[in-house]
Amino acid sequence: MSVNWEDFYSSLAGRKSSGALAEIFKLTERPDIISFAGGFPAEDMYLVDEAREIMEDIMARKQTDALGYSPTPGFSELREYIAGRQTGLNMKASMNNIVVTSGSSQGVDLVCQAFIDRGERVMVEAPTFLGTISTLSNHEAKIEPISMDEEGLNTDELEEKLKQWEKENNLPKALYTIPTFQNPSGRTLSLERRKTLLNLASKYNFIIFEDYAYGELRFKGETLPTLKELDQEGRVIFLGSFSKILSPGARIGFIQADEKVVDKIILIKQSLDQCSNSPGQYLILEFGKRGLIERQIERTVDILKDKSSLTMELLEENFKDIATWTKPEGGFFTWLILPEEFDSEKALPLCVDQAKVAYVAGSTFFLGGEGKNNLRLCFSEPLLSEIREGMPKLKEFLVDVMEGKVKITS
Amino acid sequence: MSVNWEDFYSSLAGRKSSGALAEIFKLTERPDIISFAGGFPAEDMYLVDEAREIMEDIMARKQTDALGYSPTPGFSELREYIAGRQTGLNMKASMNNIVVTSGSSQGVDLVCQAFIDRGERVMVEAPTFLGTISTLSNHEAKIEPISMDEEGLNTDELEEKLKQWEKENNLPKALYTIPTFQNPSGRTLSLERRKTLLNLASKYNFIIFEDYAYGELRFKGETLPTLKELDQEGRVIFLGSFSKILSPGARIGFIQADEKVVDKIILIKQSLDQCSNSPGQYLILEFGKRGLIERQIERTVDILKDKSSLTMELLEENFKDIATWTKPEGGFFTWLILPEEFDSEKALPLCVDQAKVAYVAGSTFFLGGEGKNNLRLCFSEPLLSEIREGMPKLKEFLVDVMEGKVKITS
Repeated sequence: MSVNWEDFYSSLAGRKSSGALAEIFKLTERPDIISFAGGFPAEDMYLVDEAREIMEDIMARKQTDALGYSPTPGFSELREYIAGRQTGLNMKASMNNIVVTSGSSQGVDLVCQAFIDRGERVMVEAPTFLGTISTLSNHEAKIEPISMDEEGLNTDELEEKLKQWEKENNLPKALYTIPTFQNPSGRTLSLERRKTLLNLASKYNFIIFEDYAYGELRFKGETLPTLKELDQEGRVIFLGSFSKILSPGARIGFIQADEKVVDKIILIKQSLDQCSNSPGQYLILEFGKRGLIERQIERTVDILKDKSSLTMELLEENFKDIATWTKPEGGFFTWLILPEEFDSEKALPLCVDQAKVAYVAGSTFFLGGEGKNNLRLCFSEPLLSEIREGMPKLKEFLVDVMEGKVKITS
Repeated sequence: MSVNWEDFYSSLAGRKSSGALAEIFKLTERPDIISFAGGFPAEDMYLVDEAREIMEDIMARKQTDALGYSPTPGFSELREYIAGRQTGLNMKASMNNIVVTSGSSQGVDLVCQAFIDRGERVMVEAPTFLGTISTLSNHEAKIEPISMDEEGLNTDELEEKLKQWEKENNLPKALYTIPTFQNPSGRTLSLERRKTLLNLASKYNFIIFEDYAYGELRFKGETLPTLKELDQEGRVIFLGSFSKILSPGARIGFIQADEKVVDKIILIKQSLDQCSNSPGQYLILEFGKRGLIERQIERTVDILKDKSSLTMELLEENFKDIATWTKPEGGFFTWLILPEEFDSEKALPLCVDQAKVAYVAGSTFFLGGEGKNNLRLCFSEPLLSEIREGMPKLKEFLVDVMEGKVKITS
C-alpha cells in the first residue's frame, strides 16, 4: 500500500498550493510571447566574455578552493571586498558586518529567521516584492501593509498606524522596504520621507530591512542616500544583491548589519545551506577586483535608459487616456494604474493568448484582493523592438476588455 | 541611541549561541595542525583540469544561461540527468521526481519545512550528522535518538520504542537516517536491518529521509541496496549530494521523491533561495555527461581505500589496548570508542594545543551528554603522511590523558 503524503505534510506544505512566481517564469519561456512579466536582467547586460575569462582564471588559479566548501559567512576576501564597496557607497562596513547569502532571497529568509517569530508583525509596502510576501508567510509573520504613492511608502499613514498600535500596546517589530526603484512599483522613497521613516523607527522602536536589489541602477535624477546611510542608530539591516547588477545565476547576495547580528545570522545560515557556492563567490570577487561590476552597471544603466525612455514614450502615446503609471528613475519596472473595475488577474491568460503579451497582475504583489486594476511591466528584459511591438498590442487588448469587446469570465 | 538587538531577536536567534561546525572549520585551517576533524574531500580527489575545461566550455556555450536564473526545481537537463543516474542506481526516477537543492543541507531543511511542524517527532540515529540535529532543532522538531551498533541503527530498540509510542498513541512522523557509511560513525546498516526498518515504517506508518551523501564511496565489501531501492510503498525520500563525489563548493544536491512531494518542495524552495546557482548546476551536468562523475568516484574510492587501510593499520598498531573502532567499508569516517570516563570534548583543545592533532568530539553528534568517550576521525582529508604522523601522536596524547599525565580541567 502506498503512503498517503497528505497525512504527512507540515502545516506550511499544506498551505502551499500555487506558485505565482513559477507561473511567471513559465510565461516568459514561450517564444511567441512578448513578456513584460519577467524581472530579470536582459541578456545583453551581461559581460559574457569577461565572465568566461574570469571563470577560466578562477578554475586555473583557485582550483580546489573553487570546488571546495567556503566558510559559512563567505570567503573572507569577498566579505572584505563587499565591505570596501559598501564603504565606498557611504555605508561604512568592515568584513565582520558582512555575511554572504545565496541571493538576497536567502537574505530575506535569514532576517525572518533571526528576528521574526510566528505571529509577530512586519510592515511592508503595498504592493511589495512577491518573494518577501511568500517568505514572511512561510514564517507565519503577520504582514501589515502600508500604502504607497508616487513618493514611495506613505509615511503619514505609517505614523497614524503606529500611533494607533502604540495605544494598543501592539507595535510591530520590523519594516521590510525596497525604498529605491521598488519592485513592483518602480517608485522611490523621497529624501524627506526617508528621514521621516527613520525618525518613526526610532520613536516607535522598530527595525528596518532595506532591500537594495535595484538601487544602483539609476538612469535618471540624483542619487539619494540609502536608509542605511542615513541611519544613526544602527536600526537598518541592509540586504544587498548582485543578481541585478552582475549575475542572478551566481546566487550571491549579502547582508550588512551590526557584527552581533551577523554572528547570529551566520549560525542560522549554517543550517540552511552551510555556505554559498564557491564559484559564484569568486566570480563576484573577480568581477569586483577588475572594476567590471562598475562597468556592467554602466552598461546596464545605458540599456535601461533606452528601454525606459521608449517605454515611457509608448505609454504616453498609447495609454494616456486609460491609465496612469510610474515614471521610474531607475530599476526594471513601471506600474500601471487602470480604472478601478479592471481585473488584470482575470485578463492575463486572455492577454497572453490573444495579444501574445505578458505582464504580472498587480494583485500578485498585495496580500489579498487589492491591486486588480494594476499591472507590473518590466522593461529590462524585452528587446527595444519587442517593447515597440508589445506596447500597442497591450493597449489594444486593454481597450478591448474595457469596451467589452473581449469578455472576461472567471 | 543605538538599537538593542537583544530586544529584537527571534526565539531561534535567541537559542543560537555556538557554532560547533564553524569551530571545526576553523581548526582545520591552522597549518600546524594535523586535522582528522574536517569531513571534506581531499584536494587530490578533485579533477581540477577537467573542471577548468568544463567551466570554460559552459561559459563559452551557455553564456547567459549560466549567468541567469535557473528554474526553481533546477535546469530540466540536470533533473533529467539525475533521474537517469538514479534509475541506473536502481532507484527509478523521472525528471518530475527530482528537485535540485543547494547542497543536501538544504535538502534536509526542505524536508523539515515540508513535513515537520513544531513539536513533531523525528527519529535519528544516535550519533548522527550535526547539521541535521541543528536543522531539526531550528524547526523545533522533537528529536528521538535511536542507538546504533556496528550493524547500524538498532532496529530492535526502534521496534520497542515504536510499540511503546503506539500504546501512547504518539507515534513519530519520520526517521532521518544515513544508512550507508554514516557520518559520524562510519557504520552501515545491514541488509537484514534495512528490510526490518522498512517493515517497521510500514507497520507504524512513518516516513524515511535517506541521506546518501557517502553512499557511492564504497572501497570494500559488497554494494547494498538503498532504502529507496527496497522501498515498496514510496515511503522513502532520498537526499542526494554531489558534495562528496564531485564538489562541495558547487552546492548542488537533490531530493528524489514522489512527484506530489516534489511539487510541494519546489513551492517551499522558492521562498528559500529561489533557485540553486547556475554555474554549479552546469558543472554537475557536464561532469555527468562526460562520464567524469564516475571517474572521480573511482579516483576518490582509490584514495579512500589507501587512507582507510593505513588508518586501520595504525589504529590496530596504536589503539588496540585503549579503544575499539568502526571498520568502515566506505565513506570518510571511523569512530573511536574510548573508556567510559574519557571526556573527548574537554580533551580536544589540549589535543590541538599539545599534540597538534584535531578530531571531533563524539558528543557533538548526540543530543546532549552522551558520546563523550567517542571521537570522530576523518581519514579522507589528511595526507597519508599526516595520517602516519598524526595517529601515534593522537594515541600518545590519549594515553597521557588516561594516565593522568595530562590534566584536563573544565
